[in-house]
Amino acid sequence: MAKWVYLFKEGKAEMKNLLGGKGANLAEMTNLGLPIPQGFTVTTEACTDYYSSGKKITDEIQTQIFNALAELEKIQGKKFGDTEDPLLVSVRSGARASMPGMMDTILNLGLNDVAVEGFAKKTGNPRFAYDSYRRFIQMFSDVVMEMSKTFFENILGEIKEAKDAKYDTDLTADDLKEVIAKYKAIYKEKMGDDFPQEPKIQLMEAVKAVFRSWDNPRAIVYRRMNDIPGDWGTAVNVQAMVFGNMGNTSGTGVAFTRNPSTGSKGIYGEYLINAQGEDVVAGIRTPQPITKLEEDLPECFKEFMQIATKLENHYRDMQDMEFTIQEGKLYFLQTRNGKRTAPAALQIACDLVDEGKITAEEAVLRIEAKSLDQLLHPTFDPAALKAGEVIGSALPASPGAAAGKVYFTAEDAKAAGERGERVILVRLETSPEDIEGMHAAQGILTVRGGMTSHAAVVARGMGTACVSGCGDIKINEEAKVFELGGHKIVEEDYISLDGSTGKIYLGDIKTVEASVSGNFGRLMDWADQYRTLKVRTNADTPQDTANAVKLGAEGVGLCRTEHMFFDAERIPKIRKMILSDNVEAREAALNELIPFQKADFKGMYEVLEGKPMTVRYLDPPLHEFVPTDPEDIKALASDMGLTVEQVKSKCDELHEFNPMMGHRGCRLAVTYPEIAKMQTRAVMEAAIEVKAEKGYDIIPEIMIPLVGEKKELKYVKDIVIETAEAVKKEKGSDIEYHIGTMIEIPRAALLANEIAEEAEFFSFGTNDLTQMTFGFSRDDAGKFLDSYYKAKIYESDPFARLDQNGVGQLVKMAAEKGRATRPNLKVGICGEHGGDPSSVEFCHKIGLNYVSCSPFRVPIARLAAAQAALNNK
Amino acid sequence: MAKWVYLFKEGKAEMKNLLGGKGANLAEMTNLGLPIPQGFTVTTEACTDYYSSGKKITDEIQTQIFNALAELEKIQGKKFGDTEDPLLVSVRSGARASMPGMMDTILNLGLNDVAVEGFAKKTGNPRFAYDSYRRFIQMFSDVVMEMSKTFFENILGEIKEAKDAKYDTDLTADDLKEVIAKYKAIYKEKMGDDFPQEPKIQLMEAVKAVFRSWDNPRAIVYRRMNDIPGDWGTAVNVQAMVFGNMGNTSGTGVAFTRNPSTGSKGIYGEYLINAQGEDVVAGIRTPQPITKLEEDLPECFKEFMQIATKLENHYRDMQDMEFTIQEGKLYFLQTRNGKRTAPAALQIACDLVDEGKITAEEAVLRIEAKSLDQLLHPTFDPAALKAGEVIGSALPASPGAAAGKVYFTAEDAKAAGERGERVILVRLETSPEDIEGMHAAQGILTVRGGMTSHAAVVARGMGTACVSGCGDIKINEEAKVFELGGHKIVEEDYISLDGSTGKIYLGDIKTVEASVSGNFGRLMDWADQYRTLKVRTNADTPQDTANAVKLGAEGVGLCRTEHMFFDAERIPKIRKMILSDNVEAREAALNELIPFQKADFKGMYEVLEGKPMTVRYLDPPLHEFVPTDPEDIKALASDMGLTVEQVKSKCDELHEFNPMMGHRGCRLAVTYPEIAKMQTRAVMEAAIEVKAEKGYDIIPEIMIPLVGEKKELKYVKDIVIETAEAVKKEKGSDIEYHIGTMIEIPRAALLANEIAEEAEFFSFGTNDLTQMTFGFSRDDAGKFLDSYYKAKIYESDPFARLDQNGVGQLVKMAAEKGRATRPNLKVGICGEHGGDPSSVEFCHKIGLNYVSCSPFRVPIARLAAAQAALNNK
Repeated sequence: MAKWVYLFKEGKAEMKNLLGGKGANLAEMTNLGLPIPQGFTVTTEACTDYYSSGKKITDEIQTQIFNALAELEKIQGKKFGDTEDPLLVSVRSGARASMPGMMDTILNLGLNDVAVEGFAKKTGNPRFAYDSYRRFIQMFSDVVMEMSKTFFENILGEIKEAKDAKYDTDLTADDLKEVIAKYKAIYKEKMGDDFPQEPKIQLMEAVKAVFRSWDNPRAIVYRRMNDIPGDWGTAVNVQAMVFGNMGNTSGTGVAFTRNPSTGSKGIYGEYLINAQGEDVVAGIRTPQPITKLEEDLPECFKEFMQIATKLENHYRDMQDMEFTIQEGKLYFLQTRNGKRTAPAALQIACDLVDEGKITAEEAVLRIEAKSLDQLLHPTFDPAALKAGEVIGSALPASPGAAAGKVYFTAEDAKAAGERGERVILVRLETSPEDIEGMHAAQGILTVRGGMTSHAAVVARGMGTACVSGCGDIKINEEAKVFELGGHKIVEEDYISLDGSTGKIYLGDIKTVEASVSGNFGRLMDWADQYRTLKVRTNADTPQDTANAVKLGAEGVGLCRTEHMFFDAERIPKIRKMILSDNVEAREAALNELIPFQKADFKGMYEVLEGKPMTVRYLDPPLHEFVPTDPEDIKALASDMGLTVEQVKSKCDELHEFNPMMGHRGCRLAVTYPEIAKMQTRAVMEAAIEVKAEKGYDIIPEIMIPLVGEKKELKYVKDIVIETAEAVKKEKGSDIEYHIGTMIEIPRAALLANEIAEEAEFFSFGTNDLTQMTFGFSRDDAGKFLDSYYKAKIYESDPFARLDQNGVGQLVKMAAEKGRATRPNLKVGICGEHGGDPSSVEFCHKIGLNYVSCSPFRVPIARLAAAQAALNNK
Repeated sequence: MAKWVYLFKEGKAEMKNLLGGKGANLAEMTNLGLPIPQGFTVTTEACTDYYSSGKKITDEIQTQIFNALAELEKIQGKKFGDTEDPLLVSVRSGARASMPGMMDTILNLGLNDVAVEGFAKKTGNPRFAYDSYRRFIQMFSDVVMEMSKTFFENILGEIKEAKDAKYDTDLTADDLKEVIAKYKAIYKEKMGDDFPQEPKIQLMEAVKAVFRSWDNPRAIVYRRMNDIPGDWGTAVNVQAMVFGNMGNTSGTGVAFTRNPSTGSKGIYGEYLINAQGEDVVAGIRTPQPITKLEEDLPECFKEFMQIATKLENHYRDMQDMEFTIQEGKLYFLQTRNGKRTAPAALQIACDLVDEGKITAEEAVLRIEAKSLDQLLHPTFDPAALKAGEVIGSALPASPGAAAGKVYFTAEDAKAAGERGERVILVRLETSPEDIEGMHAAQGILTVRGGMTSHAAVVARGMGTACVSGCGDIKINEEAKVFELGGHKIVEEDYISLDGSTGKIYLGDIKTVEASVSGNFGRLMDWADQYRTLKVRTNADTPQDTANAVKLGAEGVGLCRTEHMFFDAERIPKIRKMILSDNVEAREAALNELIPFQKADFKGMYEVLEGKPMTVRYLDPPLHEFVPTDPEDIKALASDMGLTVEQVKSKCDELHEFNPMMGHRGCRLAVTYPEIAKMQTRAVMEAAIEVKAEKGYDIIPEIMIPLVGEKKELKYVKDIVIETAEAVKKEKGSDIEYHIGTMIEIPRAALLANEIAEEAEFFSFGTNDLTQMTFGFSRDDAGKFLDSYYKAKIYESDPFARLDQNGVGQLVKMAAEKGRATRPNLKVGICGEHGGDPSSVEFCHKIGLNYVSCSPFRVPIARLAAAQAALNNK
């Protein structure tokens, strides 16, 4: 018989996949002899079984749960539903990977009309007992039965008004009994049944609710954003209750062994005296710093610090701990490796190496590659900042500078983000329902909540700037307006936030790119020692190239030459070329473009100092360049000696039904060889001149896009060679050059063995390859991909994370076939996926030579490449 | 040392690949001891070598040519450039497959200023000698040196005027000397060199010109239309000249051993007394029927008939022969298996089987599958024909009825065809340059030329109706007008042609579909015995289905359900569904559609009498259904209680950037499950009812389109099963049904092993699969595919002929992977390629179960499947 339930004392840290992170750590802490309220864990496999059994818990699993419960009753010396001293438990989710705020928790389970009496007797505090029962009914109805909270909030409000009570705490035990009666009545009215009095039924319903919550829409979104597979499932932890709200020798808190924002050493955290655990996380009252506990409860603080140190040394990482003090006795409710900002992660990793606790390899593996993105976030431009008016300040909850238009709901923020606006989301407090709006925002500002509030934790995870707990704000979320520092800010007004200082500014302050710190360089040096995959960048200007080189790029993997044509000075010339009727006119227009393109290439070659650069020839459909603005059309007509009507009709002729699958890529060079000639001249002249001037050993790499057939590549290659050789002759140069192709349509991958006969290198254009392989266009997929996520057909965006099963199969096939023909074929990837860690690992595993990504993702790719090498040794 | 050149006596019929069809047959006839002017053949390998050597003939090959020439001089007892009796030769192309009119011929080669004197002496006919020399200079300059003919025509015209000569024949030998002098002068002026006097140089230039002509644009187009690979190359035949224009005991002709239009037994052909060979083919003078030769030259006719019979018996097929009679002596210049209409092919094949000359298997292999298309061409509707006014009649050159708008140039015809118009191409006479315009036409009408003229031969090959040699027509091609029977017909007027009767009608006469003859049934029965591949049809209406069943379809392989929605009565309902905001409104609109869709399915099931039918669920992007006509928009708005603006804006929201890769196929069912539910109800109710009413054993096959992922198919399949089971329960039926998918996007092929876990059958949608695999859309590829053909990157349209290397690789992979998961997986193909013979053979080879094609291609697919089975035994 399978084992579906483990007592805490039966587990250990290594059983994380089975028990979830929380369950495994509770087991580990139990084994370490720490003060843990005991309990048991229903395994992640039980969750998977629940789904595969048609959302049912089998009798076998239920029996094991009840057996574990009986054991827990023995351990605690209490009984479920007891009239003297009832056992109360919390029920919490706990997946393999931490999913903060995503899953629902139930406290005080086990209370019923009888047990509440026993609880009152045992605690000698009837008011506390009835308040706990009231809270339990409300929480159970909401979380387990999915009744609206407002029913209960209204009842409570009415009774408070009737009793003239200002706070909940003004209500007496008898008042609360009245509340409970009304709660039970509304429950019966809405649910059709009495509120369940049998604690075992309460428990089983709660366990099911946790299982169900694994698949709520918030959880699905979180998993998609964090690459967590949907089939992992969650464990359920059932733990004896302890109470932090039993008076002034009780309390509850959250603490980190090091500062999760900066990584600096020393305990860091917050607590509230006389409060339940959820109060700290929800940020409803603003808590005290943990160090103040030394004054309030010195013995507890001393014990807490000893255990915290023990935990960090045991796990060899910064710990994030939850604790409760019940009438002077300290309990640890959980510990885990703490989430942290990227600078903190670097600081902690470097410190742990210096402290001899971990190796450099471990340090490299500890940093989440994606999180480096945070280090590269913008700060305010110092000049612009001087003029900026500070209108308030609050907690620096997640670093980085952000400016944008104010929106008051997650939906509005999301919609604005989709329109391409920069967004600051302003909320009283955030909740998991806000996750997509938060994701769309450049910055988040909350009125309530501390450094460990939902907003702060989630924003740090996302690398989004966040200022939290700004109590000075007067907000009216319905009217979409807030007041601060004497200013009234309405929807779509601009504000700016500094998540590193906590300052809030009026207006749209210019931001500048981040520079990187010493720890960063140290970690990158380690990473570079381990990785075998080269990292290049996608850049189209000398400036971007310089930036990327600073961030460690070892060359340009993709220079998109069309980006050089959109400049105001240049676009009239490319338009003229496009609308020309014959080769001569096209050549004349192209000749005017050569100096610009050549100057760009020269600038890039200079910055690269001999590092390689792959130049991709003109790729987009030509109609992307033609004017739509009437003024532009008029200007073009007059420049070309045509009527406006003629220009319009020529532009219309370029219309395509499916431009993504139209006249673009090397198809342009096949129909208009003069374009390839012009580009070859620009590349070759630039390379020869910079080589001569600076002495760099430049070997141009010319990349023909969208090839699907060897003869097609050969045809364009012959054109390129003819011009290149002519330029060499003119300049008296013996420069080498390579001609290769992008593999971005399925046929090219299928026939890569033939194509490699002509191509000296392959670069996978995984954006287009993903489009063609899935048969959906990136621009249009938005209309249905949401339905696909909801239906759990796809779990992640294939344009962000390489589809290894499908698209990856083509990539692997093409690399193998290409190398079978040409063993020294250089193979890389230059789609968006080049900066995605899981995709980088895939590229490492199938033996590519390099990845190329946007400049700011270069460090991510370097680290991901190192991790891939270490993980696949 | 390789052998590049073969004397006729060194070859044989089996060496067709090396010597070309013409060369191999000349060798075979030589071996048979027939009267053949001797000569030699430069091999197709020499042509390939010419191209791979950068368009150069190597010294080795030239030496072999000159050695063969020396042998020929010995055989003929004449010498190149001799002053008494010079050797003159013709130089002709001859590829492996016959390419009529595509390649250029040079006659009288070997003449120069000295040899012409010898030739005059030998023939005793100076006028004839100088005329031959004149013709040679003109032909050499045009064909070999690519000078414009007009230079020479102008000179000839001027001299005729000066000499007051009406016909060429009115010019004397001295006049012709003058012409020759002027010809040579213009040659020198334009070419910069003297006209080549050295016969060996003339010969080598002519050989090169033949090789070059293999790659002229007409040849490339012809090869593309006839699936002839570009790397075959052409051979060159150098043959001693004989002259049919040496007086009234000379002549030249073309004849068939059976009638190439009807297949009836008996000699069939034409000849001209005192003419050169090209005069017959070009159709400049209208020739005599071959039987009349018995009167003119009875001895020659007798010998001719003996040899013709010998040749047919030898080759066991109808022969197409060219002959020349020089001063009473008969020579055969070539023989080959004659091109014929499809009815003739059937008649001849059946007759040869009945005569015991070939087996039924051979008969099946003899008929070109594509040609059956001709049998299924329309005839005139008898009622409409009664009212039709006959304005003229001429030769019934290619069978079939056609009606369309008149165009006078190939370019205009092509352009009109691309606009979707029905076209009748009217020409004085056609030439190879007209090939694309002829292809675009429904019918061809020529003023000049016989049954073996260019127009007639090419039209029969294409299965296009043709009436030729209508000398009554007064045509002005420049003014785009002709007169016939008292009517003036201008461009874009409608006329109608009957290529089977030769009649020409005024106006646009309605045509009706063809019925098939007894020979057809006989051949199809033979074919069905040999084939293993099943043949289904793509049909969407009971009528099309009935038609296809008559033509032998064994089921419906693809019923495109969206075609059922475009009816005037139905489209408002689908529009209402599309623009509805919520599930309820969509369901209400869909419920109105069920009766229509169900009635269609019932009609099809009734016609199929238990044969299988695969129903594909809604596939196109929804915006294809929305109204664009202002009246329709208004009607829809009023029907839905919306404003016109609201309807417009809802329609605009459906816009997609790349609709081919957009919200379509099963993506519609994922977002709007109610569509799949409605369609399931319609299919299941129809099947259950017809099964009950008629007792047919119906097992519906439901096909989910555009699947790319197993979970996606599973999701839609679950919706289908739920509704299907509900319908079964309502109706108390235990009907079986199968759910499968189309494999039409690359990812589905790559993951076919997973998809087969859910799919009970696969059908390859090779149209979409071709688009995605090549990365170009069918609608847009027209803009660049012409350049690709010209550049010889692609040789055929991948949408017409399956790309076996690329797309075929995916098809094969998917079939293998699918069957690895589910060994009894039924696999078919339902794209346009299902009716293309080479694609059918591919499907046979990779072991598919069936092909499905449009109704009129069903016989083609049946025959192609039989040929594939026989050829791959």
